[in-house]
Amino acid sequence: MAKQETWFTEYQTDALSLGLRIRQILLAEETPYQHLLVAETETYGRLLALDGAIQTTLQDEFVYHEMITHVPLFMLDAPKKVAVIGGGDGGSIREILKHASVEEAHLVEIDARVVEAARRFFPELSSALDDSRAHVHIENGIDWVKTARAFDVIIVDSTDPIGAAAGLFEPAFYQSIAAALKPDGILVAQSESPFLHQGLIQQMIRGMKTAFEVVRPYVAPVPTYPSGYWSFLMASHRPLTPSPRCRSEAISTRYWTPEMQSAAFVLPRFLEELVT
Amino acid sequence: MAKQETWFTEYQTDALSLGLRIRQILLAEETPYQHLLVAETETYGRLLALDGAIQTTLQDEFVYHEMITHVPLFMLDAPKKVAVIGGGDGGSIREILKHASVEEAHLVEIDARVVEAARRFFPELSSALDDSRAHVHIENGIDWVKTARAFDVIIVDSTDPIGAAAGLFEPAFYQSIAAALKPDGILVAQSESPFLHQGLIQQMIRGMKTAFEVVRPYVAPVPTYPSGYWSFLMASHRPLTPSPRCRSEAISTRYWTPEMQSAAFVLPRFLEELVT
Repeated sequence: MAKQETWFTEYQTDALSLGLRIRQILLAEETPYQHLLVAETETYGRLLALDGAIQTTLQDEFVYHEMITHVPLFMLDAPKKVAVIGGGDGGSIREILKHASVEEAHLVEIDARVVEAARRFFPELSSALDDSRAHVHIENGIDWVKTARAFDVIIVDSTDPIGAAAGLFEPAFYQSIAAALKPDGILVAQSESPFLHQGLIQQMIRGMKTAFEVVRPYVAPVPTYPSGYWSFLMASHRPLTPSPRCRSEAISTRYWTPEMQSAAFVLPRFLEELVT
Repeated sequence: MAKQETWFTEYQTDALSLGLRIRQILLAEETPYQHLLVAETETYGRLLALDGAIQTTLQDEFVYHEMITHVPLFMLDAPKKVAVIGGGDGGSIREILKHASVEEAHLVEIDARVVEAARRFFPELSSALDDSRAHVHIENGIDWVKTARAFDVIIVDSTDPIGAAAGLFEPAFYQSIAAALKPDGILVAQSESPFLHQGLIQQMIRGMKTAFEVVRPYVAPVPTYPSGYWSFLMASHRPLTPSPRCRSEAISTRYWTPEMQSAAFVLPRFLEELVT
């Protein structure tokens, strides 16, 4: 009998691909915004892809979700109101709710089908959305943020800067976020790969500097994202130093540690030079 | 006309692949030890693969070569004699020779064809081999190390633990290295991916602990290696702390910085738990 294998292949660029052998496709549909795929991979467990780009796998999502949330939240002594723009899988909300001070965690996802797929296929991430402190808004983040006020942290947990997400990388959006934050509030955005998207990182920093005094990049490995190495940008109106809570409040994590809170900001020389 | 593309695909496991579109295959041959391929990729520049596994690309080799060399060398005030087992491309020797105190840098590569291919296609790496302090031994590293003595640092820059390289991951080899080092000498070995090769990392640590008192893991991103995230194990008979030289001796790097010398040892919680 002939050998048969099924693979999911993401063309991360037109010259770079990541292939994952899969056991089963669980869902494949066109939503009003994008193509949505859920599949069971051999290597990284269950996978969610949007327009062919991997958003989350069960085996490596913890790195991304912990680092996009705990690093900004632990800069503050008592974050109360936090919002996530994008991130419909719920993974970021799950991490945010680990902080005892948090009273409201808002998820602003444009595509209801992503949240529905997460509720059905990723309970490990989405069950956090049932917490009484979690509020789900099915809405365009760019519109939502215009009337949002008094947030401690706003997290831009977006897809790549194409299609519906392009506006999430624009200066005007960062200015809206600045208005939606408390004076000592913090913006964090995923900012793609330091190896593959250097122009975008520089453009995002320039955009954030139109609205914030301080912009600081940090890094973490995410195996299923292009190049396996990812960056985040943190912006605020004041110098960013970890809260003492970072060592006193014990939370359950698999990547983040109190030492990583600082080490993640130690950049490779090429990235240091790129961002200064 | 039909569209035509040429891709190099590494099956990193039987369920995980990395694909790189290539412009040209420059060399493909069977050596006495392995299949050797040199190709020009779009994304990461020139590539060297052995038995289908990427060893080096011009665009990301700096991370691996800087981190496998500078981190151990900067633990010492004046390393003089250094050896690299494997690493026939010359990249590690190039970095070692940046340290002013180094008098001898020995390359011990089993496969002459790898060195020949590097001299022909990777002058950026191999030209270091023409330095008067560089000594190339075409020899099995396991045999060579048995008579080596008084080294400050020995670096195991090996391929994956299969075929000719399997013995480079054995306790007996680490014991030979311990005998080849000065009392305060340092062993470093590449130890594969923290995401994909956790059993191997634990096995290597156990092996090293039969010959050394201290074993410390550190990490760096390498996009073209499986998962994009790589680990190294450093072993010695004494506690490892950076030399003051780490900040006073300026060397030209693209990844390593004096701050990275410490930050690379800050491990994700899952890896901390794995290695303790």
